[in-house]
Amino acid sequence: MLFHVRIDVHVPLNTDPEKLKDLSAREHERAKELQLQGKWTHLWRVAGKYSNISIFDVEDPAELHDTLSSLPLNPFMEVEVTALCKHPGSLELNK
Amino acid sequence: MLFHVRIDVHVPLNTDPEKLKDLSAREHERAKELQLQGKWTHLWRVAGKYSNISIFDVEDPAELHDTLSSLPLNPFMEVEVTALCKHPGSLELNK
Amino acid sequence: MLFHVRIDVHVPLNTDPEKLKDLSAREHERAKELQLQGKWTHLWRVAGKYSNISIFDVEDPAELHDTLSSLPLNPFMEVEVTALCKHPGSLELNK
Amino acid sequence: MLFHVRIDVHVPLNTDPEKLKDLSAREHERAKELQLQGKWTHLWRVAGKYSNISIFDVEDPAELHDTLSSLPLNPFMEVEVTALCKHPGSLELNK
Amino acid sequence: MLFHVRIDVHVPLNTDPEKLKDLSAREHERAKELQLQGKWTHLWRVAGKYSNISIFDVEDPAELHDTLSSLPLNPFMEVEVTALCKHPGSLELNK
Amino acid sequence: MLFHVRIDVHVPLNTDPEKLKDLSAREHERAKELQLQGKWTHLWRVAGKYSNISIFDVEDPAELHDTLSSLPLNPFMEVEVTALCKHPGSLELNK
Amino acid sequence: MLFHVRIDVHVPLNTDPEKLKDLSAREHERAKELQLQGKWTHLWRVAGKYSNISIFDVEDPAELHDTLSSLPLNPFMEVEVTALCKHPGSLELNK
Amino acid sequence: MLFHVRIDVHVPLNTDPEKLKDLSAREHERAKELQLQGKWTHLWRVAGKYSNISIFDVEDPAELHDTLSSLPLNPFMEVEVTALCKHPGSLELNK
Amino acid sequence: MLFHVRIDVHVPLNTDPEKLKDLSAREHERAKELQLQGKWTHLWRVAGKYSNISIFDVEDPAELHDTLSSLPLNPFMEVEVTALCKHPGSLELNK
Amino acid sequence: MLFHVRIDVHVPLNTDPEKLKDLSAREHERAKELQLQGKWTHLWRVAGKYSNISIFDVEDPAELHDTLSSLPLNPFMEVEVTALCKHPGSLELNK
Repeated sequence: MLFHVRIDVHVPLNTDPEKLKDLSAREHERAKELQLQGKWTHLWRVAGKYSNISIFDVEDPAELHDTLSSLPLNPFMEVEVTALCKHPGSLELNK
Repeated sequence: MLFHVRIDVHVPLNTDPEKLKDLSAREHERAKELQLQGKWTHLWRVAGKYSNISIFDVEDPAELHDTLSSLPLNPFMEVEVTALCKHPGSLELNK
Repeated sequence: MLFHVRIDVHVPLNTDPEKLKDLSAREHERAKELQLQGKWTHLWRVAGKYSNISIFDVEDPAELHDTLSSLPLNPFMEVEVTALCKHPGSLELNK
Repeated sequence: MLFHVRIDVHVPLNTDPEKLKDLSAREHERAKELQLQGKWTHLWRVAGKYSNISIFDVEDPAELHDTLSSLPLNPFMEVEVTALCKHPGSLELNK
Repeated sequence: MLFHVRIDVHVPLNTDPEKLKDLSAREHERAKELQLQGKWTHLWRVAGKYSNISIFDVEDPAELHDTLSSLPLNPFMEVEVTALCKHPGSLELNK
Repeated sequence: MLFHVRIDVHVPLNTDPEKLKDLSAREHERAKELQLQGKWTHLWRVAGKYSNISIFDVEDPAELHDTLSSLPLNPFMEVEVTALCKHPGSLELNK
Repeated sequence: MLFHVRIDVHVPLNTDPEKLKDLSAREHERAKELQLQGKWTHLWRVAGKYSNISIFDVEDPAELHDTLSSLPLNPFMEVEVTALCKHPGSLELNK
Repeated sequence: MLFHVRIDVHVPLNTDPEKLKDLSAREHERAKELQLQGKWTHLWRVAGKYSNISIFDVEDPAELHDTLSSLPLNPFMEVEVTALCKHPGSLELNK
Repeated sequence: MLFHVRIDVHVPLNTDPEKLKDLSAREHERAKELQLQGKWTHLWRVAGKYSNISIFDVEDPAELHDTLSSLPLNPFMEVEVTALCKHPGSLELNK
Repeated sequence: MLFHVRIDVHVPLNTDPEKLKDLSAREHERAKELQLQGKWTHLWRVAGKYSNISIFDVEDPAELHDTLSSLPLNPFMEVEVTALCKHPGSLELNK
């Protein structure tokens, strides 16, 4: 089941740089893991912003919620979810 | 170059059904063509709405504009474009 | 899988009353059918507006889309979908 | 009398984790209590967000206000209330 | 039970003046009736706009819905409902 | 002269409870005073929110401004003013 | 009593040019009249738009409403009213 | 050249009262100066809010920017600028 | 004097194609003229939309208004104007 | 490839003035550099606001992102990107 997720990250200006570095490193690890599991199928950066647009392929909304909650940067994220379905005009040439 | 495009289609209620059917058929043809050319890499439907979310892989904004303008249903479309770039955390396992 | 759906109905003022009556009757029939199938589990009217708030229990976003598209009044509907999941604090005393 | 309530919870990043844990535990207790009393008839989580959508069955707007005010996490909540009424097309198969 | 109702009236420019005059006359009759029944307790015009702000005192949201639906100008109305309750600081000197 | 005033109160989470208690007590006193003077003719709470909707009957916008500025909780208030006038359809049965 | 009024004029594209010309001429006449009476003290055009910003000096909101309603182009106007009062820092060098 | 400027002032709740008093006194001085120079031709308070609406008569946008930047309370101001021009229907009876 | 102008063009779907073609040709002519006069210094298309972003270099807001009003497609345009000034960090290498 | 970038700068009120001075000086240096490299082709200030509107001429969205991220004041910036293309009516008299 596919979900389109837009994430805008708002890190408070006074965040400890070491803590942020650590969180970001752990975020990369977790993102890698979820991609290798086939759950986070696409991840793009929005040009000019600390935002990304992703496609998640999960069992159901509950798995989506748990997946997003497991991200180390989650407390800084503003998340917008859109449920997707196959488009009749799509050839699905790419995953 | 990747662009994220959200399209909301607003067909006036009094549109001639035959005309709409014809436009939709030509839209499918054109969409197929652009997918086979590798320019329209992803096309998903937004659940519950006459809307879709797509990824286009084009040379530049001008090609994106020409591509979108070539769609038969374009006069009914409300289009929102977001420029994307590779995310440092993406493994790019899928195209 | 549960989806929260808000529907605002916008019937053009010049709609033929007979046609609208017919569409509304068919809408009621279809709504009844979907409720008996256990797919449209809740349907409430928003006080003071031609709007309703519903809960749908479907297989996936595609079934939600097909279900909403099958509603006779669909061309007049503005639809907003929100994916739901079980809340850890819910006792789920009611369906 | 039914009210649809959307609650978005905004916990400040610097909240003491112990205090938050305590408030959340008390929130669960209170939510349980209100569900058993038949006043909080539905409670769903919005996928991907620290938000929930609920249906409350109360005597009047004053009881709704008191009920929401009694929630331990209330100071962190942004609340949106919508008055509902029975929909003529609802079979009311579920409570 | 009190509800605050903001109504913005949008009459299409091409509405037949005779029909509008008739609807307005019937609207005044109905408004008078509802005020005498004690259901429409306050009715003010928003300066500069074809809008009004009202307080309705009804049994429940369903009666509010029926009352608003019974207004002859209802098809032209955009309605926004807010549920009210007694304010602890109000002396309730006026009805 | 009547003005419709919507007030949303935003008290910072770290406000000293004693100070807030004191301000609220003084707010009640001032509200009582203004009601007895016939300047604050209606005061309702918005169900589920720390917000109220009021009608003020004052000499002119300057008196409205001074009245609102005299409220002890004013620094926490977001205020929206709408100028009202008698509605031709109002019987003015209530003040 | 001063009111700030922003008016955006939306003339339907299919309006009869003769009718519009006539309405505009009458609008100018009425505007002249109201200025000479000292009720419409300022009238500026918003650069690039069919919009204007005005100051009206009237007895009360009812007179403002009647004044705006008397404008021949009123049916095409979207009106936003803001109640003004003397600013303590204003020297009031100009009317 | 005329510009319409709406200013909303947001003073943080924890601002030192002495500092604010001093800034406000200097703001009044500067406002007086600019009015006497004929650059700040109108200044009105928005009833009920810490906001004002002004007309500035300056050489060009750069002078407007410098003028607004010279206001002691500027760091607390949210500013919205609208370029004005003479309205063909204005008699310009007042400056 | 520089103004930033965003123009969104909304051509009604039922516009006569010949009339639109004619208007567009005249629009191009007028745009060419204004560019050669040095008044319309920049003109870019927004990718994917029937919108453009321009810089105008004119005497004052009145000339901007007259210039925009002289565009043949003006009745279809939604225009948003922003007054610009030289940025202290700009080297002004390009006009 | 051209991008239109609107930047609104939000400097927290409690920022150390020395630090801000330093960041601003470095921002000017970096802006100069990018202009001399031909990547930041236009930079204008929005009159009355701490905002600017720019045109960037870069290889692709990734270079735009890196360029904006390299600005010393970037952590205080709210950035909005719009992809541009050549307008068929533009004579491109200016760069």
